[in-house]
Amino acid sequence: MLHERHPCFVFRFMNGRFPLFCFETRFWGITLGDLSPEDSHVIITAMEDQHRKFMKAALKEAQKAYEKKECPIGCVIVKDGKVFVRAHNLKLTKSNALMHAEVIAIDKACKKLGDWRLNDMDMYVTLEPCTMCSGAIVQSRIRKVYFGAYEPKSGAVCSCNDIFNVEHGHNHHVEFEGGVMEEECSELMLQFFKEMRERNKLK
Amino acid sequence: MLHERHPCFVFRFMNGRFPLFCFETRFWGITLGDLSPEDSHVIITAMEDQHRKFMKAALKEAQKAYEKKECPIGCVIVKDGKVFVRAHNLKLTKSNALMHAEVIAIDKACKKLGDWRLNDMDMYVTLEPCTMCSGAIVQSRIRKVYFGAYEPKSGAVCSCNDIFNVEHGHNHHVEFEGGVMEEECSELMLQFFKEMRERNKLK
Repeated sequence: MLHERHPCFVFRFMNGRFPLFCFETRFWGITLGDLSPEDSHVIITAMEDQHRKFMKAALKEAQKAYEKKECPIGCVIVKDGKVFVRAHNLKLTKSNALMHAEVIAIDKACKKLGDWRLNDMDMYVTLEPCTMCSGAIVQSRIRKVYFGAYEPKSGAVCSCNDIFNVEHGHNHHVEFEGGVMEEECSELMLQFFKEMRERNKLK
Repeated sequence: MLHERHPCFVFRFMNGRFPLFCFETRFWGITLGDLSPEDSHVIITAMEDQHRKFMKAALKEAQKAYEKKECPIGCVIVKDGKVFVRAHNLKLTKSNALMHAEVIAIDKACKKLGDWRLNDMDMYVTLEPCTMCSGAIVQSRIRKVYFGAYEPKSGAVCSCNDIFNVEHGHNHHVEFEGGVMEEECSELMLQFFKEMRERNKLK
């Protein structure tokens, strides 16, 4: 499903420092169309494995938030094909409205890199980012966001707003892909809210 | 001009802990209509003086950013009629995309208060907030934002987006008022960009 929409990511994924002048399916003169269906399948499977690997790392972070009775959202930022920073939601723990997983991860990445520009990095986050986090992603110039569950009530990437749309006056365009390991990400959220309702009933 | 749009703020400003159930012009049975034009004028002038006082404090912060060769944006958060925290843009100084004046101020306020909810606080900022900052304002439940200059290229309050509009799925509605000491706020920005262009020419 993924490769039908973005065939170029097959190549991008095989090279963390893949330049932005790769358009669609062409790279070093090779197009997906040049490959046999079997070869394409192998490459696409490898790419999907990479996606799952990073989203699993984000889910592990979400689990840490869950154990702290925080809304279970986790996030990793990936650079050169490796996890660069990890973070999870700490809003209640820190009593701070800014402490969403994405904002903490961007803060960590800027500090680790010593630069405010995270151009060649991708983010994996278990839930569609809110307005603040989407804005922070644009500000830090992250290349692409992969998110798990859609957030129909307040997601700002495609559900309730389209923050990454350059029409809103941003200098930087962020690509995105929703629904990566959607079921697992949603399941954790549903479990959390179910438990929260039960706790509230007992009060 | 201000009172024509929001007459209730005359009263709100005279009481920092003014409750949200004050609707429009009515407060303790008094409406602006009950007052003589002279009395209304006195109250409105006092209110505008308050606005100017807080925006001047924000401009002082912007000046600090200017001296650090940062884009000159300053901000204060006001609680109970007093400045609670102050901040200015430190994006380049800290090499961190998150370090906008508004985000730093919200971070400081949450830490000082020990709570993620800043419900009874107002923000004064010299420039219309961007998407990230507008989202952070919504997340922290700030009551009202007063900004100086409009930002036609990327302002997210009313210029290029309308983040405070509850239609975007936020639980909290933030009020706003633009154009407070607009001329002074714009002047500082224009001066900064003029100097920056001159510096770049010399390179």
